Amino acid sequence: MASLPPGPPSSGTPHAHSHVVPRHPRLDPLADRYAARTHGMKSSEIRALFSVVSRPEVVSLAGGMPAVTALPLDAVGSMIGELVSGMGAQTLQYGSGQGDPRLRERICDVMALEGITDASPSEVVVTVGSQQGLDLVTRVFCDPGDVILAEGPSYVGALGVFQAAQARVRHVAMDDDGLIPEALEQALLESRANGDRVKFLYTVPNFHNPAGVTLSEPRRRAIVDIADRYDLLVIEDNPYGLLGFDHEPMRALRARDSQRVIYLGSFSKTFSPGLRVGWVLAPLAVREKLVLATEAQVLCPPSLTQYAVARYLDTQPWREQIKLFTELYRERRDATLESLEALMPAGTTWTRPDGGFYVWLKLPHGLDAKLMQPRAVNAHVAYVPGIGFYADGSGREHMRLSYCYPEPDQIREGVRRLARVIEAELDLHSTFDTVDTGTFRAVGRPAESPAETIVGPANSDRTED
Amino acid sequence: MASLPPGPPSSGTPHAHSHVVPRHPRLDPLADRYAARTHGMKSSEIRALFSVVSRPEVVSLAGGMPAVTALPLDAVGSMIGELVSGMGAQTLQYGSGQGDPRLRERICDVMALEGITDASPSEVVVTVGSQQGLDLVTRVFCDPGDVILAEGPSYVGALGVFQAAQARVRHVAMDDDGLIPEALEQALLESRANGDRVKFLYTVPNFHNPAGVTLSEPRRRAIVDIADRYDLLVIEDNPYGLLGFDHEPMRALRARDSQRVIYLGSFSKTFSPGLRVGWVLAPLAVREKLVLATEAQVLCPPSLTQYAVARYLDTQPWREQIKLFTELYRERRDATLESLEALMPAGTTWTRPDGGFYVWLKLPHGLDAKLMQPRAVNAHVAYVPGIGFYADGSGREHMRLSYCYPEPDQIREGVRRLARVIEAELDLHSTFDTVDTGTFRAVGRPAESPAETIVGPANSDRTED
Ligand SMILES: Cc1ncc(COP(=O)(O)O)c(C=O)c1O
Ligand SMILES: Cc1ncc(COP(=O)(O)O)c(C=O)c1O
Repeated sequence: MASLPPGPPSSGTPHAHSHVVPRHPRLDPLADRYAARTHGMKSSEIRALFSVVSRPEVVSLAGGMPAVTALPLDAVGSMIGELVSGMGAQTLQYGSGQGDPRLRERICDVMALEGITDASPSEVVVTVGSQQGLDLVTRVFCDPGDVILAEGPSYVGALGVFQAAQARVRHVAMDDDGLIPEALEQALLESRANGDRVKFLYTVPNFHNPAGVTLSEPRRRAIVDIADRYDLLVIEDNPYGLLGFDHEPMRALRARDSQRVIYLGSFSKTFSPGLRVGWVLAPLAVREKLVLATEAQVLCPPSLTQYAVARYLDTQPWREQIKLFTELYRERRDATLESLEALMPAGTTWTRPDGGFYVWLKLPHGLDAKLMQPRAVNAHVAYVPGIGFYADGSGREHMRLSYCYPEPDQIREGVRRLARVIEAELDLHSTFDTVDTGTFRAVGRPAESPAETIVGPANSDRTED
Repeated sequence: MASLPPGPPSSGTPHAHSHVVPRHPRLDPLADRYAARTHGMKSSEIRALFSVVSRPEVVSLAGGMPAVTALPLDAVGSMIGELVSGMGAQTLQYGSGQGDPRLRERICDVMALEGITDASPSEVVVTVGSQQGLDLVTRVFCDPGDVILAEGPSYVGALGVFQAAQARVRHVAMDDDGLIPEALEQALLESRANGDRVKFLYTVPNFHNPAGVTLSEPRRRAIVDIADRYDLLVIEDNPYGLLGFDHEPMRALRARDSQRVIYLGSFSKTFSPGLRVGWVLAPLAVREKLVLATEAQVLCPPSLTQYAVARYLDTQPWREQIKLFTELYRERRDATLESLEALMPAGTTWTRPDGGFYVWLKLPHGLDAKLMQPRAVNAHVAYVPGIGFYADGSGREHMRLSYCYPEPDQIREGVRRLARVIEAELDLHSTFDTVDTGTFRAVGRPAESPAETIVGPANSDRTED
């Protein structure tokens, strides 16, 4: 991309060379034409890190990239090659908007592993990653101004979808056992009192991104009970459910309520994100709307990638492969937690995931992960500042560490660098005497209203003011 | 899918079997929760035909499926297999939201064939088919109630996008030379007078879907001139531009104005629709918004399919393949036009495409393509009723015939069946003496307002009231 100085709007010069297009938004000649939703769009914290993260000297604990090289690439390659040579008339052709029927059957088998045994392929819509599934659900339900309840913190990609839909996000507190049912109930009551139109609860019950925590069994029952009593729709986003280190997959919320829970699944973490195959499981009436919405958006998901996943599930040892993935991630999780334990200065707290990709770390009181970031990058370690995972500017003291991609040795080196950066930061701040380093207890910031208390899940106990 | 009778909303029965979900929208327990945009969504005329069209005894002139089996499937298969085996770390991994840089370079080479020589890869966003490109552009620009100008008739998938965005479509008349500049200017003037916020003109200049006509060179200049004078944004949707039968590709509108024209391209018709790879070329400021929008929608397009297209362009004789495709389509076009000429009853008119996939046919006055459809299906021939290509209920006398997929012999048989159905229809109607069969001239229906005169392009002369 050229970095010429921005010029004036070039109207009237039809053949103007494109490189002189002004880059500064105030000079964008179309600035007054965009839709209202467009003005709110901004680049995510994660994308801003892309260029940094790809530098080889930097240990990146930032990205959430699965370890795809652990796949049997030769076998998958010849499998996909044969799909094209042998079935090109199907795999290279348009397909149905809802997705390949054979794949939808296999998706039902996959969901059965989490206790969803009553799903019918007709209720499944295949999507371009579960990201598209979430976008479709949001478009189908949300008008501008509608309220979505979501954990604080929440998946950054979900916040992007909600913002694009001009929905308002109300965070609900969570702790080491996941979303706090009492906080959910209070948020519902307060929203009702406010006259807010709450469209749904968006929740990631397993190995939460970014919090790393999992919704406990009693809380699952409590959440489904609240959904029932308040007639609340729940969007269960579950890309990590099969990636547990210690126990069998937990029973999905959808397995407990087929009418109020819309389930989002993905093959991005159990197979490959580059194929972009995810799905939505929804009651038939909603499914119908989702199909219309996806047809308007992409006509149909790619045929080739759908056939690839279906064939993979049919012919490759995919359960063993998931086992292999989890062993690899467990090792990396161990490296992360051991190094954190050994190296982090007092006052730093973090979650202890038993599956998935992420640790959520809280800096000693007074430190700011976003402000600290340039110094971390200088020290050749990258993370995602916590602020990106909140819709309301919270999370300054937090960061997300991903252990999914780097090797254990890199992780240890990365944590070492990070610990040094935090220590230097503490030294600096102690000069000004503003930092509370004397406690391991996660410290909550005073929040605007009790139900909106945003508490990052800590590794010790939970703090609710 | 079960066809049990609809029951009452099953709230309070969390484990209710999904098959008893009520299918009738009035019984949808979530009916009052949908977004405003969702209520307007309806199934397209084309989708409604899917089940019919796949019956082997039916000659389908309905679908727009490219003849992908004319590809060298073995070569493409091993090429893609090797991409996975050899480059799995990239092809199976997440990529950038904007799309693979190498592919974006090759896309610029492709666009150069239509005279777009100043495009930079940084201005290109790779999309999940050009359908997603159109959806992104529409989301970035259109608020509910905004007006979009579009040919009458227009691509049905575009109308779906515009409806989902709650934009209002104002059709602009076209004839054998494509969009009529005077009609465009009049539509702009009237929209201004009405206080309508016109966001852009959506146009398919080459081998129009469904009209089969191409915007002439003088009209291209006139349209770009109008865009300049009225400061009108133009969305140039061009999936068929390289599929001409008789002459070199025409110079794109985008080649004449890099600031006011946003260009949509696709590999669906020149290579494979099952890969779902399309693109948008837009000025940098707009490109930036499009990337944010696509990240919120799908995170990134599939990596594998992007690498497949880039490698195909790098290593396979893609220009020769396009030549092969056009020869095949030309033969089918010839079979269509010859049979129509030989068999259609007086009063039937149609366009004569010199590229692309479609013929737009107008029935003798008084006949209704939609009402006739069940009888056509009974006679084992399928088409798409014209009404689906209008946002305003016009097009009843029209139908789209696609010649891209069936073999010439099937086409001839299909047209023979269709001619018989139309004749039977005429016999029936002449009994009631309402049909004008005495003229080859396309007959326009009286329209609500002069600028909204909707004239299907006829094979004879144009009719503008
Ligand atoms: C919680 C959560 N939901 C959804 C996604 C999107 O995944 P995909 O679109 O690749 O299926 C991610 C990816 O990181 C995620 O962490
Ligand atoms: C005019 C036009 N635009 C866009 C499309 C969408 O094509 P794709 O999304 O496969 O690139 C089509 C497909 O038929 C079309 O005819």
